This record gives sequence, C-alpha cells and structure tokens, in this order.
Amino acid sequence: LRVQNKLEAVIDKHMRSIDAAKVSLSSITTEQLWKQSGRFSANSELFRLNDRRKSGFLLSPTHEEEITEIVGGAIKSYKDLPVRLYQVTRKYRDERRPRGGLLRGKEFLMKDLYTFDYSQKDALKTYKAVRQAYTNIFNELKIDYIVADADSGNMGGKLSHEYHYIHPNGEDKLWSCDSCTYVANEELAEHKIEGKKDWKYRMVLEGVSTDHSTRIELHISVPSPENYTKDDYGKLINEHAVKKVAENLGIDFATGLNYSTLQEALKKATRTVKIYDGALPEAASQAASGDITQIQDGDGCPKCSEGKLHSVPGIEVGHTFHLGTRYSEPLNAVVATEDNNSKVPVQMGCHGIGVSRLIGAAAACLHDSKGLNWPRAIAPFEAIIVPTPDIPEADIHQVYDKLQSAGIDVVLDDRADKGVGWKLKDADLIGYPVIMVLGRGWKDAKTVEIQCRRLGFKKEVNAETFTSEVEELLEQL
Amino acid sequence: LRVQNKLEAVIDKHMRSIDAAKVSLSSITTEQLWKQSGRFSANSELFRLNDRRKSGFLLSPTHEEEITEIVGGAIKSYKDLPVRLYQVTRKYRDERRPRGGLLRGKEFLMKDLYTFDYSQKDALKTYKAVRQAYTNIFNELKIDYIVADADSGNMGGKLSHEYHYIHPNGEDKLWSCDSCTYVANEELAEHKIEGKKDWKYRMVLEGVSTDHSTRIELHISVPSPENYTKDDYGKLINEHAVKKVAENLGIDFATGLNYSTLQEALKKATRTVKIYDGALPEAASQAASGDITQIQDGDGCPKCSEGKLHSVPGIEVGHTFHLGTRYSEPLNAVVATEDNNSKVPVQMGCHGIGVSRLIGAAAACLHDSKGLNWPRAIAPFEAIIVPTPDIPEADIHQVYDKLQSAGIDVVLDDRADKGVGWKLKDADLIGYPVIMVLGRGWKDAKTVEIQCRRLGFKKEVNAETFTSEVEELLEQL
Repeated sequence: LRVQNKLEAVIDKHMRSIDAAKVSLSSITTEQLWKQSGRFSANSELFRLNDRRKSGFLLSPTHEEEITEIVGGAIKSYKDLPVRLYQVTRKYRDERRPRGGLLRGKEFLMKDLYTFDYSQKDALKTYKAVRQAYTNIFNELKIDYIVADADSGNMGGKLSHEYHYIHPNGEDKLWSCDSCTYVANEELAEHKIEGKKDWKYRMVLEGVSTDHSTRIELHISVPSPENYTKDDYGKLINEHAVKKVAENLGIDFATGLNYSTLQEALKKATRTVKIYDGALPEAASQAASGDITQIQDGDGCPKCSEGKLHSVPGIEVGHTFHLGTRYSEPLNAVVATEDNNSKVPVQMGCHGIGVSRLIGAAAACLHDSKGLNWPRAIAPFEAIIVPTPDIPEADIHQVYDKLQSAGIDVVLDDRADKGVGWKLKDADLIGYPVIMVLGRGWKDAKTVEIQCRRLGFKKEVNAETFTSEVEELLEQL
Repeated sequence: LRVQNKLEAVIDKHMRSIDAAKVSLSSITTEQLWKQSGRFSANSELFRLNDRRKSGFLLSPTHEEEITEIVGGAIKSYKDLPVRLYQVTRKYRDERRPRGGLLRGKEFLMKDLYTFDYSQKDALKTYKAVRQAYTNIFNELKIDYIVADADSGNMGGKLSHEYHYIHPNGEDKLWSCDSCTYVANEELAEHKIEGKKDWKYRMVLEGVSTDHSTRIELHISVPSPENYTKDDYGKLINEHAVKKVAENLGIDFATGLNYSTLQEALKKATRTVKIYDGALPEAASQAASGDITQIQDGDGCPKCSEGKLHSVPGIEVGHTFHLGTRYSEPLNAVVATEDNNSKVPVQMGCHGIGVSRLIGAAAACLHDSKGLNWPRAIAPFEAIIVPTPDIPEADIHQVYDKLQSAGIDVVLDDRADKGVGWKLKDADLIGYPVIMVLGRGWKDAKTVEIQCRRLGFKKEVNAETFTSEVEELLEQL
C-alpha cells in the first residue's frame, strides 16, 4: 500500500504539471451510456450486475463514457476548454486469462487521464504535453522502458504510444531496431521490404464490404518458402496489416458472421480483391498491396538503413491515445464555435497508466534471488535502520532523526522478538533501497554500515557523512 | 475529493495512534467465504456477479470474512496478537432505498477497522482504545455528535456504540435524556417503568421455536389506553424488545415462513407463551416479561431519577462493535493458547466510519442559505484569497506566501474571467472557513478584509496580524 501511495504521488505531481485536476468517478456505472457509445456488446469483458429493480449496471473497465457525459454537461463554449481530468481508481475486467498476480487481474488500479480540446491542433498540443509528463513519470521511476509507436502518427488516425517494461513475463511482443530508436508493437510493426522475390504463397480470406452489401473474396499473396504448408500461413501473414489494407478498401472482417452463414454468403460473392505483399513483383502495379508479412528476427528496420529488427517481450504499463471525436460524437459533448454559429464535438484523448500492474512489473523487472528491489521513487521506505541489540536507544534515535531531517524516508526495525540476521534477510526480501546496520562499527568508532544490494555497495561510513552517502546512493536508484 | 482526502488523513492519524496498520482489500470477493460465515442469503443486500466461468462473486459491503480469512492464515500463536488493520475503500450495497446523495448510496466509501485479540479482556482494552480514537476523530471534526449505546455493555453480548450527527435528514431515531448522558437508538432504548397499570392491551404474535420444531403463539400484553384499536399496536409495542425477550425463550421470528404456511402451522400450535410488559402487575411473577412498549416523548429516563426522554433524528456516521468469535469461529481463525495445549478462536471487533456519508452529513449539518460550511479539519482549503483586479501580483503572492508559511492551507482565486462579486459568492457556496479580500483596504492601508460567515466575523486586519487572526478563527471551526 505504501508503494502504491508513492506511485500515486509521483503520478499526481506530473499530472499537476500539465494542469490536470484529480477526480474520482464511481466504479458502478449504468449500461445506458455504454449502449450509446456502442461499446456494450454481448462478447465484451464487462462485468455486469443488476440491482434489485433489475436495472442494468456494470463495473467500469475505463471511464470514457462517464467522463464524456459529465464534461459534456459542464462545458458550453470553446472558451471552457481545455479540460484535463484524471483519477486513480479501481477498474474491472472479466479477464479471459487473469495471470501474473498484479500483471493481469479482474480488479486493478489504473490512472486514467481524459483530455478535452477545441481543435485538433489544440489536441495535438495536449498530446505532446501528456507525452512529456509520461516521459517525466517513467524517468523518475528509473526502470528501463521503451516507447512503442502504436501508429504512424497521422493525427487524423489513431495517434498513440505504448510504454513498456521489458520482461519475459510480458504478454506483448515488440520489435525494436538495434541501430535507431524504432520500436513498435507486433501488430503495428513494419519491416524493410528488401528486393523482389518471385516465390509466393497464396491464401484466401473471407470478408464482407463495410456496408454488408457485398461478399468479398480476398486473395492474399505473400512470399513463401517452398516447404510452407497451408497450416503455416499464421506464421507468414500479419493479419493486422492485412486488416488495415482491407479496411482502406472498404472491407470488414469484424462482422461477427458465423462460419456457416459466411460460407453461404461466399457462394454468391460478387467481388474478388487481390492483395499483394510489397516484396512481390505484382505489388508495384497494384493499389491493394502493403507490408503484410510477419516480421522475422533480423529483418531490416523500416526507418533506418543499417538496423535489424529484434523482438523483445514487453509489459505494457502506460498508453497515450488521441481519441478525436470517438466518444464526444455519440455522447454529444459539443461546444459552440468561435463564431458562435455552430457546435462541434470536442477533441478527446485518453491516457492510462496501469498502477497495480506497474507495481507488479517493477517487482518482476528488479527483483533478484534475495528479494525485491524498489526504485527510490516508489520504495515503501527509502532506507531501513537495523540495530544490533546492544546499541543504546538514544544512539539509534540520533541516527534516525539525522536521516529524517535530511528528508530521507526512513524506517527503524525495532521488532524486539527478531534477531539481526532475520531482520537483514527481511529487509532484503522487502527490497528497501538502502539498509543501514548499527552494530560493532558504531560501538567501536561510531560508524554505520551502509548496504545497497542493487549497486553492490557495502561500506562503513562515519557519523558525519552517512546522510550524504545514503543520499548519493538513492540518487542512482 | 480534497474534503475526502482530508477526512481520510484525520482518520489515518488517529488509527496510527492505536497502532492500526492500513491495508486495502479487493472490492470483489468470492461467495465462498460468505457462505462459510452464514451471511450469504437470498434476501440480502449483496450485489452479486458472475465471471465468464460462472464463478460466483460479490461486491463486498464490509470485509469481516475476507480479513478474518487473511489474518487467520497469518497468525499462529497468542503472541502474534493484538492485530489491528483498517482500510478506507469503496463498499457496495444493493440498497432498497438509496437516498440523500452521499447519505445512502449503492456505492460508498467506508473506513473499516478490524481488531484481533487473544482474550476478552484484551479485546475490551482494544475496544476502549478504539472508542478513545473515535472520540478524538469526532472531536477534531468539531461537528456536534452524540454517542448512542447500542446495547447494555455486557461484554458477553454485543458491546457496541453508534456515533450520530443530529439532523432532520437522519434515518435513525434516537432517545436522549434531558438530564443525564443517556442516549440510545430507538430499537434499543429503554424507559423507566413507572407505577403499576392495570389496563392492558393484548396482541398475538406468531413465532416458531429456534429449531423450527414447535409453533408458538405469543400473547403479548402491554398497558394500553382504552381507545387504542388493534391497528394501533405498532405504536405501542417495541418489536425489537419483544424479539429480544422471545429470543431468550428460544423463539424465532426470522424464519421467513410465508403467511399462509404460518397460518397452517399455527393451527397445530403446541405452545403458548405469554409476555407481559414490565408496567403490568403480572410482570413481577413472570419470567417472560420486559420493557416492551415503545417510548413516548417525555417518558422517564431509565438511568437517572429526574430526566425525561426526547427523540432526535440522527445520521449514523460511525459504529464500534465487539464481535467476539462471530467470524473467527466459522472461518477458523484460531491461535495456540499460552500453555500451547489448545487453540482458541480470536476475539474480534469491527469499527466503521462512513466516510462518504460523513461528508454528506457534515454538509447537511453545517450549510446555510449561502452555501456549505466545512469544518477546518476537512475543508478543501482552510482559507481563500480573493483579490480585486487592481492589486499588484507581487502583493497577492506576499499575502499568499505569508499564510502558507504559517501552515495555513490557502488557495488563491486567480480566475481571470470572473469578477470579485462572483468569486465571493462562489467562495461562500464552496464553504471555505475563511475568506480574505484584498481590495480597497489593501490599497489604502495594507489591510486585508477577513470574513468568516459561520462565526459572523468581518474585519479589516493589518498586514502584521492577519495570519494570527486567521489562525484564531480556524481554531474555532
């Protein structure tokens, strides 16, 4: 709970820096708003419940609907913008695969910031400010992180970035360049199209036009080694990329048609569309082409000339997202324009940090065989004092007071029923950044033994300098 | 949210004073523990939900089950006690009558402290310490409150106290003595039995023995004015008191039998039990008697000789409760005894403060026609500075800095698009304890106008003394 509170304090500080005000919305919300936004469906991860009058409620996994409704009711004119509101509250998802303790649970703590702007230009400014605040937050935590482009950065599209900690427990696969700063999530990553290849593999996908009027047969052609079988296509084709190409052609895969209905429909297919991977000779003369093969380790980077792509597993701990009018339009959050002649839906953004997940990820990334290792910014205490039983209480308090008045968040292990060995193991297990032992050294020469497992530091320091020595260690953690 | 955070900080301070550690339990809990404790029933106020695997969950209204399970798994010996754990988290109840905004909602914020002791004697010490902490919390809030005995104080029974704010919106009816300190909730209040009365009213209630084997006809006799009809019995009889007398005789009213089943059963009633009110002559010779009439305004106090009882409406904002082994027994939270020969269930207590309800109640109790009036301890800010547009920014900051360095939590209303009149009304509406106007007085003679609506205070104060003047006002609020 102390770690959580410290993390929340770090977030609060940086949210204040971009003039975001803190709110707290209820976890129970009505179905109605979610129906209006189109996110209430039978197949979702929503936890639903009824009250005694059979009214439908749900446990909010996020609060776009609720906050859009509230802000939409409170703003009238472009002059009322920008508005930036955030909260740190419990969220709920009926997860298919809850796992990894805090990494993915049915109940979790999330920071969600919602931004409201008048124009796309203003929204872009806000987006940049949020990105900077996120950089500051993640830098302060001093845990290595990578930021993945979640799209090309076209403001009309889905401007979005993901913040990941790199760890084998991560469920996300990221492709990262070994030469430049390019990093992207598996779904969105591109690779350099190198040379023309004439061997090919053809697959047929079944789609439907966006307006559901026409059945479409998609013939997908990608380069393929000779020995690939039909069952291997999943390893060759990047379905997300195919979907993007198809979307641009007005073809929809997310129709929810079941297999037999689709088979029936496909018999009367009226259109066939061919999509070629960019590495095939046909691609040059076809509109329907793109980078649609999956990336393999060692593929060329799409951004620089010499880099190669390698995959790393990531735990997503943060996400920034420009929403545009995705929610303001259906929920009618509009403002009067400058000329007062019309009303326009506001430009929104939503920006999350998985608070409980980040705690689990930090524990996963920094622990070793002896225990946890908390970064200074979110450690339950920055330092712990472990005295041997023969040290006078006044001396212990002298050391404690000196550290505390230097602004160090210190705790004293004064449990009478435990030995020093047990206490040191316990301190390692809990993962305090700095451990200070008051023992023989103190009795002989008024020195304190300072330990810092993460930096491999162990030293007897005299009473004059131990405070600055501790501070120096903490600055690196 | 600032009010809520301040209230939580007050609670934290006093919980620390009794060595209670703060925790945070999940809001979702499994049905299983509630079945084990016997609190999972078809007619309850529990919000229930299922996950995608159809496992049964509920949204916890309180956490006795969860915390007993956790602590029971962590303690082994009497040496591990006492343990005192509390949290401030969202709770859920499928309320029959949600009302009064924060006063009674489906989702609410509650502080719940759980205490674990080895012996009844230790538990009584804990109970006293908690009572003292509650006294300190409610005194610090400086809102008039009354403490109602929720039982006779017999430690074997249900030692319990309720903390109420007096307000017409209150749903509780309290009987309070105009001479001594006696206060009790309607359900539990007693009154002096004065003289013998021979006129009587007889009512028949239908019960069943606790083991459901025998139908019982209860003949209730109470003093009654001649003109009372059968329909008036509800005004005469204190059903809670009757239930208590009946319970001692092994008779159960909470069987959930429907009326026709009960009628059928009553035809073969095998026992008749007569209960007499203490004011009737028969009472003296009958075991089955008690103070079973409802209290009327002006009835004699049961505790002192001259006092009369009067009713006041109360909003319950706190509750202390000795639980004994109510949860530790069914959930098997036991410790080894001192002689290490046996294991005994731990002695528990639970102690709540309705955090969101208290905020609503404070608003209800202290507001006037101009707006809210927050007590200093939980005001969003203790003071607000409202400058007129012609005051130099440096002067404003000088006043602000002086207050802040004196430890006063002050806010500056620097909204450029609002006038001074609007700002003063807004400050009254929000209910800051002290308003400071920097206007003509400052320009002419460097004086600040200090306003305190609740104390009817308005005065020009010079730059040397305004900080101590504000502090003096705040000390009264």
